[in-house]
Amino acid sequence: MRIALILEYNGSNYCGWQSQPCGCSIQDKLEFALSQIACESIRVVTAGRTDTGVHALYQVVHFDTSALRPLNAWVRGVNAFLPKDIAILWAHAVSDQFHARFSAHARCYQYLLLNHPIRPGIFSQKVGWFHQPLDLEKMQAGAKKLIGRHDFSAFRAAECQAKTPVRTLTRLEISHRGNMVLFDFCANAFLHHMVRNIVGCLVYVGKGKYSPDWMQILLENRNRTFAAPTFSAAGLYLTGIMYDPKWNFPKLSESLSFMDYSRVS
Amino acid sequence: MRIALILEYNGSNYCGWQSQPCGCSIQDKLEFALSQIACESIRVVTAGRTDTGVHALYQVVHFDTSALRPLNAWVRGVNAFLPKDIAILWAHAVSDQFHARFSAHARCYQYLLLNHPIRPGIFSQKVGWFHQPLDLEKMQAGAKKLIGRHDFSAFRAAECQAKTPVRTLTRLEISHRGNMVLFDFCANAFLHHMVRNIVGCLVYVGKGKYSPDWMQILLENRNRTFAAPTFSAAGLYLTGIMYDPKWNFPKLSESLSFMDYSRVS
Repeated sequence: MRIALILEYNGSNYCGWQSQPCGCSIQDKLEFALSQIACESIRVVTAGRTDTGVHALYQVVHFDTSALRPLNAWVRGVNAFLPKDIAILWAHAVSDQFHARFSAHARCYQYLLLNHPIRPGIFSQKVGWFHQPLDLEKMQAGAKKLIGRHDFSAFRAAECQAKTPVRTLTRLEISHRGNMVLFDFCANAFLHHMVRNIVGCLVYVGKGKYSPDWMQILLENRNRTFAAPTFSAAGLYLTGIMYDPKWNFPKLSESLSFMDYSRVS
Repeated sequence: MRIALILEYNGSNYCGWQSQPCGCSIQDKLEFALSQIACESIRVVTAGRTDTGVHALYQVVHFDTSALRPLNAWVRGVNAFLPKDIAILWAHAVSDQFHARFSAHARCYQYLLLNHPIRPGIFSQKVGWFHQPLDLEKMQAGAKKLIGRHDFSAFRAAECQAKTPVRTLTRLEISHRGNMVLFDFCANAFLHHMVRNIVGCLVYVGKGKYSPDWMQILLENRNRTFAAPTFSAAGLYLTGIMYDPKWNFPKLSESLSFMDYSRVS
């Protein structure tokens, strides 16, 4: 039997998603907890691996098991064996045709950036930080250049293992709530570090180092070395994985979170 | 010279505000960092001690020093010596007439309660949790009974050291954003555990165990043993201390935060 799960986690205390010999990854914690409930060794397949320090509000995995359990056991039962900062939110039986990664037709991320002269305190490890004022209109103009189907080599980490650098970015919206700047991304898929590299470049535009057109130039040059450094993992949240409605996943729009945060001034 | 500070912190990793022999309190971390900048031993006086696991978006302290430093040194300089989850937001020179605790005429707190069948994951240690549905209208009706000047003995911890149990509660509003229930409290001062005890009782009303009138009965009985258990510290945020405008503190309304969080369903 194949089971699909939706889970959320605070990535601060883990060495990223992917299983490691040290056992300190989110995948390791999840496979341990699932194996306790299944009474057999369980391996999971994820929709998308997240890096060290990256969080998720809506991550998806699937796994195969011969254990017959009520769905609630795959939620509350497993949660009893998971660390406090990881929680299964939903479980569903799916056919063998479903694949957490290959059936997904879009991924969404949100980046939270504290824009304030003083570094984060209460939201340490939960937000990125930039200390100088940012011009949101210029960032929004720069962001528009990236929408559509493009070769995103300029925003691709050297260690990226994707077969092609071509991705279709369907959403890149920038807004703010108090001192928090929110970047909302959706694409069919993302290259390694793509979101954090784009955020870094948009911050260069926002602080006035380059004009919004620079985003277009970067895209056309397809050269990572011309772009800005990768921004911090701390502000990155995986906010959704989209599947064909036939798989009956809960709607994406219901799973978003945001923080409104206005500091004293 | 007397200096007043506003600071924020995530209380998860500390044994509360008050200095302890182990050095694990927020006061200990702050006094260490201030002493580094002042090159002399600094002791601080706080507007209100927070318990283990309680957070602050707007805590106030004052201290006296013979060290002459630009105000920025008391903000960014001190932040360089503080742990990442504690940050000074503002510093101001004040006269010796100012006292962080005795000059304060009101305190505000916000309680964040995750109301969802499944326990917290990404917001572990940042929110309280209740798994059954809550009737917000009934809770709001119950909350109204507490507004005004009353003897709050029913909501007072056994170890409370206050001279009198009489407090004036000026605000107790309950709202929700997605699955997050927000309780906003303001009073001239609070008894020990008063916010967490009131939240516990309002949850009893919200789940239907008692009618809203029960809040009135508790208040009149003045007996802690009839009330609900103290709710978790994890959802409690100190959101402001109010002073006479002559002290030039930044406005309270600018310092509030909230979280909008809708889980998959």
